[in-house]
Amino acid sequence: MKLIDTQDTIIALATAPGKGAIHVLRVSGEDAISITNKLFKGKDLEKQKGHTAHFGTIRDAEDHIVDEVLVTVFKGPNSYTGENTVEISCHGSEFIVQKLLKLFSENGVRYAKAGEFTKRAFLNGKFDLAQAEAVADLIASDSDASHDAAMNQMRGGFSIEIKALREKLIHFASMIELELDFGEEDVEFADRDDLKALIYELQAVLKRLIESFSLGNVIKNGVPTVIAGKPNAGKSTLLNALLNEEKAIVSDIAGTTRDFIEDEINIGGITFRFIDTAGLRHTEDKVEAIGVERSYKKMKEASLIFYMFDALTEGFDEVRDAVDEIRQIGTPYILIANKIDLLPEKKLAGEFSVFSKELVEISADQKEGVEDLKEKALALVKADQFRTGNTVVTNARHYESLFETQKSLDDVLNGLGMNITGDFLALDIRTALHHLGEITGEVTTDDLLANIFSKFCIGK
Amino acid sequence: MKLIDTQDTIIALATAPGKGAIHVLRVSGEDAISITNKLFKGKDLEKQKGHTAHFGTIRDAEDHIVDEVLVTVFKGPNSYTGENTVEISCHGSEFIVQKLLKLFSENGVRYAKAGEFTKRAFLNGKFDLAQAEAVADLIASDSDASHDAAMNQMRGGFSIEIKALREKLIHFASMIELELDFGEEDVEFADRDDLKALIYELQAVLKRLIESFSLGNVIKNGVPTVIAGKPNAGKSTLLNALLNEEKAIVSDIAGTTRDFIEDEINIGGITFRFIDTAGLRHTEDKVEAIGVERSYKKMKEASLIFYMFDALTEGFDEVRDAVDEIRQIGTPYILIANKIDLLPEKKLAGEFSVFSKELVEISADQKEGVEDLKEKALALVKADQFRTGNTVVTNARHYESLFETQKSLDDVLNGLGMNITGDFLALDIRTALHHLGEITGEVTTDDLLANIFSKFCIGK
Repeated sequence: MKLIDTQDTIIALATAPGKGAIHVLRVSGEDAISITNKLFKGKDLEKQKGHTAHFGTIRDAEDHIVDEVLVTVFKGPNSYTGENTVEISCHGSEFIVQKLLKLFSENGVRYAKAGEFTKRAFLNGKFDLAQAEAVADLIASDSDASHDAAMNQMRGGFSIEIKALREKLIHFASMIELELDFGEEDVEFADRDDLKALIYELQAVLKRLIESFSLGNVIKNGVPTVIAGKPNAGKSTLLNALLNEEKAIVSDIAGTTRDFIEDEINIGGITFRFIDTAGLRHTEDKVEAIGVERSYKKMKEASLIFYMFDALTEGFDEVRDAVDEIRQIGTPYILIANKIDLLPEKKLAGEFSVFSKELVEISADQKEGVEDLKEKALALVKADQFRTGNTVVTNARHYESLFETQKSLDDVLNGLGMNITGDFLALDIRTALHHLGEITGEVTTDDLLANIFSKFCIGK
Repeated sequence: MKLIDTQDTIIALATAPGKGAIHVLRVSGEDAISITNKLFKGKDLEKQKGHTAHFGTIRDAEDHIVDEVLVTVFKGPNSYTGENTVEISCHGSEFIVQKLLKLFSENGVRYAKAGEFTKRAFLNGKFDLAQAEAVADLIASDSDASHDAAMNQMRGGFSIEIKALREKLIHFASMIELELDFGEEDVEFADRDDLKALIYELQAVLKRLIESFSLGNVIKNGVPTVIAGKPNAGKSTLLNALLNEEKAIVSDIAGTTRDFIEDEINIGGITFRFIDTAGLRHTEDKVEAIGVERSYKKMKEASLIFYMFDALTEGFDEVRDAVDEIRQIGTPYILIANKIDLLPEKKLAGEFSVFSKELVEISADQKEGVEDLKEKALALVKADQFRTGNTVVTNARHYESLFETQKSLDDVLNGLGMNITGDFLALDIRTALHHLGEITGEVTTDDLLANIFSKFCIGK
């Protein structure tokens, strides 16, 4: 595929802005090496092999040294973009970076747009669209799970599954279309029962991938988890125990926490986004009343609720009522008995055993039982599913395309049930192929590409 | 010089922290290549030539891919540090950087201290101490002047002058010391008049270098410039015109500006640090009175004063009184007549010609005359001296060493005047040599090195 939208040579800072020991500028395009060579004093870069690094100076039009640099030359197609590419490692000064950018700009090199290097890599067939998208996911990843999912996708794991689905469908479509060529003769090259069986098989794979998206979403964006409970149950203390830092304001005055404090912790490679809430008690304080109402809303929107009670002061009936309320919200929850260390027997009374499935006994203050809580939380988000190495869909765009593919295949199945003619079947199959192709980029539009790559950072 | 304090292999992030397209980790030390090779899946790095880049993956102990990377191999002594060095270009994620740092740490590579790569470069004789210090200056530079001074120093310009001085002195010293070997015989290998002439010559160079430090300081740290004047003279408007942005609060209520607003602008490659002040009028308002007092203090401490008056409302006598006050402060100043566009003739009355040397007529509001002001300011900080390509001392440590050298040479001269014996002369010359040697690092102590390199960033 050679669909380069422009032959411009482009440049951008590839490293994070700010002060470091070095910065790296990336130049890509047919003239990347020749233009750099004009500004570079050292070896003749045009005569150097690809994948070699050369020390020298970059000089401006007045032969003033802008910087001493290390230039690495990559010759297309053996580069990230597939084009001639030069990476310039300069001193880590923004002032120098600005000077270099200006100098290259004066020499006919254009500033790259966000994601333009990766877009060129895609357009030059270095990788497919799902892989290109994974590059941005990989850079944004901040947990083992999101890192591994992005890495798997970047290395083509997801694309392979999609391609396998697509090949089967293409075979299917061509058989049907072959029949159309013999339209007058009423032949059936594609056995309808075999085709039905194949679609069932494809639908099963699609269903698995579509269902993996809720986990994928959790992996990519974290699990929004509300810590709820009556005032003074110790929610902020638990948050601190989980975070290992003093983020929430902890005091023993009931109702201290009015604002939502969000923080992330990494449990077993999954990011949990914790949302601390005002307590649930009915209150006369207007500010706090608003807080309580917002707590309910947050709990409804969350993926997980930690409902916490004070084992010392809250009795069974009170807890049972609260659990009834939580169950009505419908969000998965864990019931947490706090301050267990202060109980005479250091455990709850026997009647609480009705909650044994959802209950964890802890002392947030003493950091006891916190590990049990973490394990239960991991089990609830089904993090184990991720561990099996199954492909997980983490991208909403892919999810939608899979969903549309599924719908088109349903249409094919319906059509088969109604014995509709091959040309209509072929149309639905082609629609399914179109949606699958959108994922890996066999089918793209300029808008789609612009939308995807504009979310990248400059320099990637 | 081979004074490596440790044979550890070290690692650090060399690029600025944060999110970018790529990050670069630098590994240096005897085992840099072999350890990286153990973690790298791709070509056998130990068999590759220096200055070559190789694509592959870095894997952890469980063979999980941490990242796809580009590894550039440098073989000592042909590297920045002079040791075996590997630069690992990974995806621009802090999560991945942390994983890589941990992985290398688990494999016996130590996290580098601030400036440790450059310190090793110095210890391995890749460059001298003044050059090493210039690396940090270069990264910190934010104007043409500071950039060029640092670049000149990094490339050895300053060191060459120091070495030339030192060689002459060493010759001097050895002649005197030779005399000591023949002590009983009362010979004079070193003609005392020649020696005196040589010291005068050295002193002249030292004097020039020492005097360049005030310019060097301006180049490195910017020119602290106070904008003063009566309330409503238009100081904030001028600041805005110079900055081209609305930083100070501008209103036509006299006395709006009470706080010092500092901002930097680049005039002809020199950084001017502008300090806006409360007006100079005598006031009943307590807060403002403190402001006026602080204005005087700031003017005394500054390198340059812009004294501004309202050409429309302030008469000659008033301005003359103010100038008398400014002159007493002793700081170089420019007298600025503002709102010149509102005068009937669009210029000042003839009597103001007594100030022609220090006067600029502007309209801050209309941005007229601002360029004239900039030129006058540049002339006052003697920026032209910098343009001649003379070596400029920008480093306080070097300034002190030069000063001490000068003192020791004065002692030599005094000694010669008093016909003291050769052994005392030799002692003073050796002291001078010691101080000169501190600059380029021929003479160092662990404390000195620790002090210098601790100011570097990690990864440099």
